[in-house]
Amino acid sequence: MSRTKLKVGYKYRVEVCFFPDQYELYAQDMGIVVVIDVLRATSAMVNAFHHGVDRIIPVSTVEEAREYIGKPGYIAAAERNGEVVEGFQHGNSPLAFEGSDVKGKTIVMTTTNGTRAISLAKDAKQLVVGAFLNLTALSDWLVQQNENVLLLCAGWRGKFNLEDSTFAGAVMDRMLESGKFGLEEDSSIAARYLYLAARDNFMSILKAAPRRRRIEQLKLLPDAKFCLTSDTTDVIPMLQNGALVRMRTPTLA
Amino acid sequence: MSRTKLKVGYKYRVEVCFFPDQYELYAQDMGIVVVIDVLRATSAMVNAFHHGVDRIIPVSTVEEAREYIGKPGYIAAAERNGEVVEGFQHGNSPLAFEGSDVKGKTIVMTTTNGTRAISLAKDAKQLVVGAFLNLTALSDWLVQQNENVLLLCAGWRGKFNLEDSTFAGAVMDRMLESGKFGLEEDSSIAARYLYLAARDNFMSILKAAPRRRRIEQLKLLPDAKFCLTSDTTDVIPMLQNGALVRMRTPTLA
Repeated sequence: MSRTKLKVGYKYRVEVCFFPDQYELYAQDMGIVVVIDVLRATSAMVNAFHHGVDRIIPVSTVEEAREYIGKPGYIAAAERNGEVVEGFQHGNSPLAFEGSDVKGKTIVMTTTNGTRAISLAKDAKQLVVGAFLNLTALSDWLVQQNENVLLLCAGWRGKFNLEDSTFAGAVMDRMLESGKFGLEEDSSIAARYLYLAARDNFMSILKAAPRRRRIEQLKLLPDAKFCLTSDTTDVIPMLQNGALVRMRTPTLA
Repeated sequence: MSRTKLKVGYKYRVEVCFFPDQYELYAQDMGIVVVIDVLRATSAMVNAFHHGVDRIIPVSTVEEAREYIGKPGYIAAAERNGEVVEGFQHGNSPLAFEGSDVKGKTIVMTTTNGTRAISLAKDAKQLVVGAFLNLTALSDWLVQQNENVLLLCAGWRGKFNLEDSTFAGAVMDRMLESGKFGLEEDSSIAARYLYLAARDNFMSILKAAPRRRRIEQLKLLPDAKFCLTSDTTDVIPMLQNGALVRMRTPTLA
């Protein structure tokens, strides 16, 4: 075993899974799972904690979220197919979780892709949430951990998406730089290449014409611009007893 | 409609689907499906036709293939998880379908990923088979067609794989060059970037350490070297009445 480790030159693995459906294929031996849904669930979660939200309870169904509408101390949020579900004031727009009215609240949230990925990976030893908004804080923290790390992309309506995979490649690139982590999977190699191709003209790739049309159709352009901004915060949300809370990171404090 | 077409500047789409499981998500409006399983099913098929095989009947189960063992005029071939199935002389090694004993024969073949992808897409208006071995012939032919084209990757044991996606990116790149084809999907953008990253040091990426170890474990190195060779033949296999046959391409003759 130690000989193999010497030969490959790293202690821990960091891998990318492009789809929640494939989670089980990649989950073996993984200690930390990072759930990624850049447009927009995990960006919204990171931003909400940055603005003082106390807890986020991810739920699978709209019905579960609906029970919290109007309940004191709670914000009920539900998104399906890019839109706020009827009857809700919040969907998954990160810009809606700012301002004084979110501070100290508990958000109960259901989204098309993001909360489903969290639900699938909820039994991981540790589950954290990533987005461009917390890229550096998250990567720095991950590098300090002595665990294999799986970067789990939420995808877009069951399809591969560029923002989640490129973000995963960005985290991957920083972790490989450390020399402590290595990769085995083709998806991980591909994500890193995507990031390296995108790095210098990041926005232009992620705003390529076909994507831009789709984002404009969904009126997501202000959200997309915000979600593709790096390092607005040091907040790392983590799952604890079924709810996301803000990680206390002494080394980053 | 015509205004939209003018705006986007192309007439037909070429898209990449990374997984057979996602075929239905990408199949809408597609006229031609290219099945890709570089290691090794579609490479074997292309090479077999190059060496004079008459027909290849793809079947889903080992039992169906087994009925043809020893039957005059037939070669029964079965591969599961990288190995020749017990009782068969052929699996999916392309190097096994050469020489005088294959000429004029019908191969009945079942493989882990490749024949499954063919089965899923069998109702497409036209289904053809791609591999590095016929890259240029296939790309040139596709560019001449007036149909949307889906490049369907077989994957590796349900996971993303680099050789199929990079090959798809290579075909994609040639088709986009023509100006006649455009893309809409993130997977298509990603495949093209992978190919552009790999183009100049193709073999080094596809033989990156983790992949090389896996390929060596399976004793696939000679096969892998062959399968990653471009343009050994002009043959394009196409599906006709449930069997693959060699396409007659007058424009390339």
